[in-house]
Amino acid sequence: MITTLAGGVGAARFLEGLVQVISPEILKIIVNTGDDFVLHGLHISPDLDIITCTLAGIINQEQGWGIAGDTYACLDSLEQLGAPTWFKIGDQDLALHLQRTQLLNAGHPLTYITDLFRRALNVGAQILPMSNQAVPTHIVTAEGEMHFEAYLVERQAKDAVLSVRFVDVEQAKPAPGVLDAIKNADIILLGPSNPVVSIGPILAVPGIRKALQDTLAPIVGISPIVGGAAIKGPAVPLMQAVGLETSAKGVAQAYRDFLNVLIIDNVDAHLKYEIEALGIHVVITDTIMRNMEDKIRLAKATLAAAESYQKER
Amino acid sequence: MITTLAGGVGAARFLEGLVQVISPEILKIIVNTGDDFVLHGLHISPDLDIITCTLAGIINQEQGWGIAGDTYACLDSLEQLGAPTWFKIGDQDLALHLQRTQLLNAGHPLTYITDLFRRALNVGAQILPMSNQAVPTHIVTAEGEMHFEAYLVERQAKDAVLSVRFVDVEQAKPAPGVLDAIKNADIILLGPSNPVVSIGPILAVPGIRKALQDTLAPIVGISPIVGGAAIKGPAVPLMQAVGLETSAKGVAQAYRDFLNVLIIDNVDAHLKYEIEALGIHVVITDTIMRNMEDKIRLAKATLAAAESYQKER
Repeated sequence: MITTLAGGVGAARFLEGLVQVISPEILKIIVNTGDDFVLHGLHISPDLDIITCTLAGIINQEQGWGIAGDTYACLDSLEQLGAPTWFKIGDQDLALHLQRTQLLNAGHPLTYITDLFRRALNVGAQILPMSNQAVPTHIVTAEGEMHFEAYLVERQAKDAVLSVRFVDVEQAKPAPGVLDAIKNADIILLGPSNPVVSIGPILAVPGIRKALQDTLAPIVGISPIVGGAAIKGPAVPLMQAVGLETSAKGVAQAYRDFLNVLIIDNVDAHLKYEIEALGIHVVITDTIMRNMEDKIRLAKATLAAAESYQKER
Repeated sequence: MITTLAGGVGAARFLEGLVQVISPEILKIIVNTGDDFVLHGLHISPDLDIITCTLAGIINQEQGWGIAGDTYACLDSLEQLGAPTWFKIGDQDLALHLQRTQLLNAGHPLTYITDLFRRALNVGAQILPMSNQAVPTHIVTAEGEMHFEAYLVERQAKDAVLSVRFVDVEQAKPAPGVLDAIKNADIILLGPSNPVVSIGPILAVPGIRKALQDTLAPIVGISPIVGGAAIKGPAVPLMQAVGLETSAKGVAQAYRDFLNVLIIDNVDAHLKYEIEALGIHVVITDTIMRNMEDKIRLAKATLAAAESYQKER
């Protein structure tokens, strides 16, 4: 069994390659739900949808989010009625939010709904929300505190970031299956996701970080920071705000208490010794995923790193 | 000021003609909300939407409901996720239900939301829901009791009707503006709507029937029953279930305590004396609305009937 911790687009692209080289049925993906928020009265789970729709083969590949070929008839009409439209929900996309909200209101946990959706969309891998309790990620900026999606999408990440809060995380519990997926895994992978707002919320749920520290499985991460910049998204200001170096080494710092191996890009080869000084093995390869071939190559390199670490231990 | 009581498609078609011959700004339309129901967690108001979208010029003319040229991308996706899809909600249509639900949940009354929508869609006439409290119309059938939309749309009106219930109508109050619109009108019109499930729920809201009995304005109705059959919809079995004759005379019976004039179709001319025996004046004309010319002609005939009744009294 392979367990992956995942945020949105970066992890989704990595997972697309991974399910080409392993049977999806042995894969469990623990997904960040800190991005979840309510808009138009609907419960929206951006990262769960990105992972599910990517593995279902229906993602808009260019954007990395949304459904390929989706239309925006409802959003255009909502605009006419005076509703906020900064979050671009397509018509097909909307069905996920509607049905999720409907089922949540009927008392079903997010775990159940997420599983229902991935099955309906023929996704073989098991997708687990990190928690069934709401743990909204708030960004404290110079302009005030706001939900992560408001910071990222509505305000285009333009505000100076002061700090990051995982609201109510003390009361949250790992969703059913999450701790077992960490404890019983043969290999654990951390997708190339933002360490602060994608993987960070998962690690903040009480019990999850401890489970990662205690598991016997080798834990391999992929740095989403290449040459000091994020492949996508506002990782740099967010890492700065929480006091991490904005480099592959900063990623290693964020995970140093449980990570065994970090995959870094060729351009970051010079960081190898500094990262290894943190007690983390380093594998250097090309981590940029331009196409499916790249994704498969990275998946194979990551699995090989996990297996060779296992052999050494 | 002209006030109209209206249900769905029949009344909407009549109103389309009416706003061609009077200034829409002097028109108030009291609309049935007994059809309102919740589906996909959304508050749907079928008759309010039919009236609003018809007067906005965006209705699907062939169906009489839904928005012209609407798409069904969301509904198709909902089906894939296992949601019920018997109620055909288009993508543009969905925006009305989403925004209505959102505003209701934020504590705004239906009256406010209805007015917001008609303004956003450039409708000049004022549209008033009959009540801001839920008064769901239930049809008691041989197969059990069900909401009117389930009876009509999901089960295609195939069940034998035993009786009709306006649930919780005793607790309902006329929405703000409704009683004044009846009291202060110069003319009151009843659209060619189903007397049992379109006009019936409006009349059942405590205070409305009394206001119609007391108003000084002439009240003119248009029979939706022509030659013993309904122009559209299940009026016949519903009228039978509540003990009304399934004819223009049955319509007159339903309104005999307040109606002054009933417009009936040429084919029903033979019913004139029986209806007049109920104390209701009769005007005979062609009531079938095939096109805008027909709608305008019927509107003019209805207004003329109201005005000549006024002169006599």
